[in-house]
Amino acid sequence: MFEDRISTARSIMRTRGVDALLIGPSADLRYLTGYEALPLERLTMLAVTGSGEQRLLVPELEAQRARDSGAGDHVDLVAWAETDDPFSVIAGWLAGAGQSLSLAVQDRLWTAFTLELQARMPQATWVPASTVMRELRMIKTPAEIALLRAAAHAIDAVHAQVPGLLRAGRTERDVARDIAELILEDHDRVNFVIVASGPNGASPHHESGERIIRRGDAVVVDIGGTRQGYCSDVTRNYTIGPAADDYLEMHRQLERAHRAALDAIRPGVAAGAVDEAARAVLRRAALDGRFIHRLGHGIGIEEHEEPWIVAGSTQPLREGMAFSVEPGVYVPSWAGARIEDIVVVTSDGVDILNEQPRKLLECDA
Amino acid sequence: MFEDRISTARSIMRTRGVDALLIGPSADLRYLTGYEALPLERLTMLAVTGSGEQRLLVPELEAQRARDSGAGDHVDLVAWAETDDPFSVIAGWLAGAGQSLSLAVQDRLWTAFTLELQARMPQATWVPASTVMRELRMIKTPAEIALLRAAAHAIDAVHAQVPGLLRAGRTERDVARDIAELILEDHDRVNFVIVASGPNGASPHHESGERIIRRGDAVVVDIGGTRQGYCSDVTRNYTIGPAADDYLEMHRQLERAHRAALDAIRPGVAAGAVDEAARAVLRRAALDGRFIHRLGHGIGIEEHEEPWIVAGSTQPLREGMAFSVEPGVYVPSWAGARIEDIVVVTSDGVDILNEQPRKLLECDA
Repeated sequence: MFEDRISTARSIMRTRGVDALLIGPSADLRYLTGYEALPLERLTMLAVTGSGEQRLLVPELEAQRARDSGAGDHVDLVAWAETDDPFSVIAGWLAGAGQSLSLAVQDRLWTAFTLELQARMPQATWVPASTVMRELRMIKTPAEIALLRAAAHAIDAVHAQVPGLLRAGRTERDVARDIAELILEDHDRVNFVIVASGPNGASPHHESGERIIRRGDAVVVDIGGTRQGYCSDVTRNYTIGPAADDYLEMHRQLERAHRAALDAIRPGVAAGAVDEAARAVLRRAALDGRFIHRLGHGIGIEEHEEPWIVAGSTQPLREGMAFSVEPGVYVPSWAGARIEDIVVVTSDGVDILNEQPRKLLECDA
Repeated sequence: MFEDRISTARSIMRTRGVDALLIGPSADLRYLTGYEALPLERLTMLAVTGSGEQRLLVPELEAQRARDSGAGDHVDLVAWAETDDPFSVIAGWLAGAGQSLSLAVQDRLWTAFTLELQARMPQATWVPASTVMRELRMIKTPAEIALLRAAAHAIDAVHAQVPGLLRAGRTERDVARDIAELILEDHDRVNFVIVASGPNGASPHHESGERIIRRGDAVVVDIGGTRQGYCSDVTRNYTIGPAADDYLEMHRQLERAHRAALDAIRPGVAAGAVDEAARAVLRRAALDGRFIHRLGHGIGIEEHEEPWIVAGSTQPLREGMAFSVEPGVYVPSWAGARIEDIVVVTSDGVDILNEQPRKLLECDA
């Protein structure tokens, strides 16, 4: 699997005119080698050259962990000692390939490392590694889709239990703690638990806090974890007791917007057009000004990865892309709502991985 | 406090010839503004110019969180909308200062952001922001030292309870879980819990695992957390039942090495000389080949920050520097030991913040 990925990376490198891929500790490194490196101030870097070499430079201190990961089966492991200059080692590996190299550096590599590399190779041109990795990671294989689907079902099972946890008198944090425990029943890690009640729902990234949930509150619950290396991410909205008419009406518009986005998804359609499909529905209800973020984000071994489903994006959808569809409406000082599912583009439409009903759910107060 | 820090940063910028400081989500941002930004793919960036402006650019989605942090009291908050180009906004702010700017970019800013900034300002020269921030953050104020001391005492109190948790038959992970709970009794966050038993002790970054602790094992316990924004970090060694003579002797050499390093600390001494003081003791015992990492790291609002106490460093110690002193000895397939305290450089020597005895502690089997 890792050999296949590196070999596909190399063929994308050729079409993009990239001479070498330089990958630090990141999901990209995990994707290409299986090694989960710690983000340390000591450099860890995979160098994949177009000419067919792949070497992983690790600090001596981490050499054992790197060996234990099995990465050595598909790349050459090289350890550097505390007094070596790891940047010169990397530059040395690339020197044979000429002066005006085009180097693709992992997008989230610490800038201090990149500045050191730039100083050692002043003639090189630098591009983000996503130039190469995007194409590779955006298209999920059937095995990856199966893992995303299993994660989706695992998080659906948690949402199914949320009505039993949401009660007037409990704090957001208490509910979030219970949800985290439920997530761990069938995930390896909790990535986030957002329980945003009443006016807190109007802040898309609200963290669960000490606010006490009250009768009449709308509560946005956005949760996700990692299961067998793949992420889940689903949002549903609840009310404590019967929903107010205006909230119910807003939620209905949001369901329509969500549906419109799903209907727009098929290969060849621009990502921006899917965002627009949802936004157009909200515009007709004069709610588009309340939809203050993009429609969605790719998902896979990371919670947020490419493609971005954002206004103006001309990125064409392709079979195998997996992403969230999550229109939201936020009214400061009042409430918010967001509906989110994970979907995969099929040969002629969309496969919705989540099966939990999307309608507003009224809990007993 | 934040105004003072920004103003000191500005005077360091002048001596270093830096025209602007560009700080993304990081401990540096927290240090300068109090704002704990999320590391998102949407740019958040503080720009401090030499001419006296300080503006914090945040994604619209995060504007409320940024306002709630109070950062707006000392910097101008500017929100960018989903369809704006935040890199052009930053370049626009700096345009007035001329073409050949020297820009200091936060060391851990994602490379993809730096490449975008470099593309918008091709004439600029780029240096890591630590060029400026190092001097600022390395020297702790009396208020910061008081917080580090309180964190040190809090973690000492946890170590005092470790003998009651270490028993033959328990797994490392079980012990680690109990330790994490104790840390939270007087810390806001657990940063790491290393319980490395028997041969696992020979791997400095071993994570606590399923290994069952046995009678006769040596166990390295390295733990730390964050309390009121400042970090703790202490390592002690335990044995389950009486220690073997050879382990006890190794630990005695390590205590001597630790003591030698403490004795070497005073203003003006090079950081490398402190590392060497410990290494020389181990060399005489033919154990220097087993001491495979640097002596220590700075500590403050981050667990690992400057100064690095490493062989060859000419960094002179200065009053107010806080760092770990942690010589270690690692014998693969057998065992390891590490002794670690947090210390602060005083006007004429060293102030050891931890008070927990450093000797090897024999637990009941």
